Amino acid sequence: MVYLTRVEHFNAAHKLFNPGWSRQQNEAVFGKCANENWHGHNYELHVTIKGEPDPDTGFVLDVKKLSEIIGRQVLDKLDHLNLNMDVDFMQGKMCSTENLAIAIWGQLERFLPVAVQLHCIKLYETPRIFVEYYGR
Amino acid sequence: MVYLTRVEHFNAAHKLFNPGWSRQQNEAVFGKCANENWHGHNYELHVTIKGEPDPDTGFVLDVKKLSEIIGRQVLDKLDHLNLNMDVDFMQGKMCSTENLAIAIWGQLERFLPVAVQLHCIKLYETPRIFVEYYGR
Amino acid sequence: MVYLTRVEHFNAAHKLFNPGWSRQQNEAVFGKCANENWHGHNYELHVTIKGEPDPDTGFVLDVKKLSEIIGRQVLDKLDHLNLNMDVDFMQGKMCSTENLAIAIWGQLERFLPVAVQLHCIKLYETPRIFVEYYGR
Amino acid sequence: MVYLTRVEHFNAAHKLFNPGWSRQQNEAVFGKCANENWHGHNYELHVTIKGEPDPDTGFVLDVKKLSEIIGRQVLDKLDHLNLNMDVDFMQGKMCSTENLAIAIWGQLERFLPVAVQLHCIKLYETPRIFVEYYGR
Amino acid sequence: MVYLTRVEHFNAAHKLFNPGWSRQQNEAVFGKCANENWHGHNYELHVTIKGEPDPDTGFVLDVKKLSEIIGRQVLDKLDHLNLNMDVDFMQGKMCSTENLAIAIWGQLERFLPVAVQLHCIKLYETPRIFVEYYGR
Amino acid sequence: MVYLTRVEHFNAAHKLFNPGWSRQQNEAVFGKCANENWHGHNYELHVTIKGEPDPDTGFVLDVKKLSEIIGRQVLDKLDHLNLNMDVDFMQGKMCSTENLAIAIWGQLERFLPVAVQLHCIKLYETPRIFVEYYGR
Repeated sequence: MVYLTRVEHFNAAHKLFNPGWSRQQNEAVFGKCANENWHGHNYELHVTIKGEPDPDTGFVLDVKKLSEIIGRQVLDKLDHLNLNMDVDFMQGKMCSTENLAIAIWGQLERFLPVAVQLHCIKLYETPRIFVEYYGR
Repeated sequence: MVYLTRVEHFNAAHKLFNPGWSRQQNEAVFGKCANENWHGHNYELHVTIKGEPDPDTGFVLDVKKLSEIIGRQVLDKLDHLNLNMDVDFMQGKMCSTENLAIAIWGQLERFLPVAVQLHCIKLYETPRIFVEYYGR
Repeated sequence: MVYLTRVEHFNAAHKLFNPGWSRQQNEAVFGKCANENWHGHNYELHVTIKGEPDPDTGFVLDVKKLSEIIGRQVLDKLDHLNLNMDVDFMQGKMCSTENLAIAIWGQLERFLPVAVQLHCIKLYETPRIFVEYYGR
Repeated sequence: MVYLTRVEHFNAAHKLFNPGWSRQQNEAVFGKCANENWHGHNYELHVTIKGEPDPDTGFVLDVKKLSEIIGRQVLDKLDHLNLNMDVDFMQGKMCSTENLAIAIWGQLERFLPVAVQLHCIKLYETPRIFVEYYGR
Repeated sequence: MVYLTRVEHFNAAHKLFNPGWSRQQNEAVFGKCANENWHGHNYELHVTIKGEPDPDTGFVLDVKKLSEIIGRQVLDKLDHLNLNMDVDFMQGKMCSTENLAIAIWGQLERFLPVAVQLHCIKLYETPRIFVEYYGR
Repeated sequence: MVYLTRVEHFNAAHKLFNPGWSRQQNEAVFGKCANENWHGHNYELHVTIKGEPDPDTGFVLDVKKLSEIIGRQVLDKLDHLNLNMDVDFMQGKMCSTENLAIAIWGQLERFLPVAVQLHCIKLYETPRIFVEYYGR
């Protein structure tokens, strides 16, 4: 079993704002992240899959194919967009990095070839804050 | 003469949208960057000053003081905010990285101690796109 | 279960010197690291916790709170200090990166909220040498 | 148990070319990577071992010794060479990053001291593509 | 005047070998870099242009256009290729990083729009070795 | 004219302490950096030289030779040492990054081959603080 990781990037706006709370409560909990006019990030996304290298190619999966799947299922739906407003699979969810990583797992899992398994979604919000999700 | 650089970060939302143009023209020129619901970045800011090291301290300027000035004049006005909507010194300007670097120069220049000179504002929009401005 | 990591930094002096050994033996084993006048590093610390995202915030833990705990329990006791001389929780221990990571685990574990668990202490001594400790 | 990682680098040429296939088939599968005149990479190698810190040194293993073993068993046989033509332990194998990581594991495992275990070979082909192998 | 930089990457094989010298002399001067079977690198290329921001866009030059020009004039001719064998504009030249940077300048200069000037080609051979060329 | 840069590293202890001042004054000015028991850093050093590429080699200077000169004249005298106590060319100087960069220039300038000129010493104290010195 070998683990293969592809690193991708996307830029997005978001805010952390619980619609069930007052504005004061949102500011008390989320501070600057609750700014109603949004802020944003350069997200760095590491997608790790696992599988056996194919004897003919030496590949767990052709990394170009992995990159195309990530592009179509994830980046096209997030890049240069507003996570709260523009992204169908984030509707009704708090746009934390934790929830975004879980949602990206959900976007990717069913589109990978059967010979490989999704292992980890690692998502950097900034170079000093990141989350990892292993599907359970 | 020694050049001293302090690296800082801020996260902000913006869009590239010329209000004198139609939406189609904006999308034709700015593509995804014109998304009306905003996107955002982790900006990395390098502020370089120059001067002679003080004989008593060995410092061109105490880097903590430089960091405080950048914090008060720049980061407090940009971090976790919307460049187009929330920033007084960007009003009426296109929020390109070029214009933002020039504006940051304008914010900092007059607040530095007289013994040093502002040399360069280097601003990364992403790890692969950056601008430099030397004040002229 | 989601894993959340906060990256922090501290600068410290240390030496690798076993007081039960002669100076020659220390130099034979630790080489330049045994220099009696100390040397130092910019340590990079990754603290990873795990837990379920809170439904109201989307957070495993507010990363500002995690950063405050790391600041109070770890950075305030290590940053700009001498690991051998100034740090109570390193007294009587060899100041290797391995032992420092184990000690940082001990400092943090009991101060985290009960809803989360400490998962990993990853400590870089240089960009090319790092250790990881998982608490057992 | 503590995990210790040493990061090393090597530069090598390779191509992805299955000798059992026609040139067209190779180009269809491997694209630019099948260029018959080779291309190359700056590989970054992370070798992670695990063990208990020695009470006298605080070390899982002296990182200089680990680096010497990696140098002798791996880097001397890969650096500034052609993976397909010059490397005995890659003969008859597709020179994918996956297969190279597995082969590096095989080179290192038997040369480590008995007190430690090889835990992971992590190999970056580019900053955005890497594989990990845990020996099974 | 603002300076705008775009960072790009390409992977290539090369060797340092002076055809007017004996193999011994090449090995004496170039060491491992003279390996007749090639080695290779992940090159990182920084292209810096300068100009005045356009009042309508805020751009010195649309970075997507800059990236397309670099792609067509430079990357398409270098990426996943052999610098000594496959690149017309390196024929008859030693394939040092210095000469490659000068040649990339020559490839780009005449294809840039007249409103901007090429300022610097910065080329990393490895993360620890890079050259800069300013056109004279 | 081409500029060639070699990146090197060294680890050292230091403190910022003016012996002509009281301990209180030192603490008021230098804060944590005045800790009498020292602290330390992983310094990153960029040495840039300039010259014409040699027609036979394509090199401004063989980077291995540049690295050897830096090793002998700079790293051997700084690495794993105490800047205040162990370094002859820092005696009687404040051990600021500014003064250290100027002193490294002095160490290197006269040992470079006549065909090249020293252009810049760039010295990182941390990833967020660096100085540059151009010899005047």
